[in-house]
Amino acid sequence: MDVCFSPEMVTAHSLKHKTVVVADILRASSSITSGIQGGVPAIRPVEHIHRRHYWQDRGYLLGGERGGVMVDGFDLGNAPLDYLKAGAKKQKIIMTTTNGTRAIQVSKHAGQLLVGSFLNLEAIAEYLLKDRPPLLVVCSGWKGTPSLEDSLFAGALLDRLGTEYDAPLSDGARLAITNYRYHKEHLSQTVRNSSHGQRLLGMQREEDIEYCLQQSIYPVVPILKGEEIVALGS
Amino acid sequence: MDVCFSPEMVTAHSLKHKTVVVADILRASSSITSGIQGGVPAIRPVEHIHRRHYWQDRGYLLGGERGGVMVDGFDLGNAPLDYLKAGAKKQKIIMTTTNGTRAIQVSKHAGQLLVGSFLNLEAIAEYLLKDRPPLLVVCSGWKGTPSLEDSLFAGALLDRLGTEYDAPLSDGARLAITNYRYHKEHLSQTVRNSSHGQRLLGMQREEDIEYCLQQSIYPVVPILKGEEIVALGS
Repeated sequence: MDVCFSPEMVTAHSLKHKTVVVADILRASSSITSGIQGGVPAIRPVEHIHRRHYWQDRGYLLGGERGGVMVDGFDLGNAPLDYLKAGAKKQKIIMTTTNGTRAIQVSKHAGQLLVGSFLNLEAIAEYLLKDRPPLLVVCSGWKGTPSLEDSLFAGALLDRLGTEYDAPLSDGARLAITNYRYHKEHLSQTVRNSSHGQRLLGMQREEDIEYCLQQSIYPVVPILKGEEIVALGS
Repeated sequence: MDVCFSPEMVTAHSLKHKTVVVADILRASSSITSGIQGGVPAIRPVEHIHRRHYWQDRGYLLGGERGGVMVDGFDLGNAPLDYLKAGAKKQKIIMTTTNGTRAIQVSKHAGQLLVGSFLNLEAIAEYLLKDRPPLLVVCSGWKGTPSLEDSLFAGALLDRLGTEYDAPLSDGARLAITNYRYHKEHLSQTVRNSSHGQRLLGMQREEDIEYCLQQSIYPVVPILKGEEIVALGS
């Protein structure tokens, strides 16, 4: 079991026979989890959205942010609750975010790619425990550096899988688990004090932080199928 | 205060006005600390040693390893005690190691570059506290992934600098400090269980692990001057 703290470090890992869980807790992977849970049929993560009309003509909603702010003319930003609500429209979403979609792009040649968040931690864990495949958690981080909230999720997931998984731990995995165990009784305060937490508080997005730290409230397992993320089994 | 967990991630940081402390606890930065402490006038870190005779003709000893093993025909491997003893010869050393010299090479455009280890932790800390420059600890890691022992050193150093330094902590710095605090009462056992600890134990280098974890026994501050590492003030 291994953890990669930023997309820039993925090249140090072989992905071919691995299951990758991508995490961008604040907020892309929480938004994707919420969207798929809410009924969005598919989310297409891209680094940039060129040709907006092309996608709109095909029934896609446009979602995403740059520097934490919704892109002008888009239907959705990166607030997870908006993705949950968007499910009612039953339209696909094409989505771009600063770090989260990049983590998905660099990991897409993995054996399988799941999208994880605190919201669906238990669902991801139970799915992994069925076959216990070689596992790599890819954290989105922030512009090439580690993010506390993503590594807390990685640690929480590996701590949950624990000895049941029966796989050796890399040093990166040990770092993440230790960090989670140290902070688990005061997760909300720790994430508020993190770089990204501070940025979101400055943008009046406190509700997003609290929402994203709710643990295992959704049973959905989002999985990459071709170029789009769908609900497992759909 | 910031921590970079592997040389591959240095590009995410601006180095220009920073003081970088390079750490490769097992074993390059412990060897360099020991050599400079022992009286080696200068150590030249290089990724590869081409033209061995060129350097030997100029009075250099050849040092280094590949995959943890001394290179055929070299004077020194990567056992820190050998570097300490080599000081008596008063010859410069040209040195190549798998990860440690790479961390120095990628960081050499920093404002200043120091070489840190547990052996000289207090000396490094006292030097930094004089001017409290913007600080980045660059961990050597292992082939692009984080190493537990390097991040433990980073955490120990930042924990020592603490509130006296009066500088904000990046998420990476928080990860390292948390990891150190969690493990500090049982450092030796933690490092023995780490990937690199296990490799060294398999190579019968247990004495190196114990030696490298001795804290603040040397007062030397190795600093990069041009292409070579020398004692600060020499």
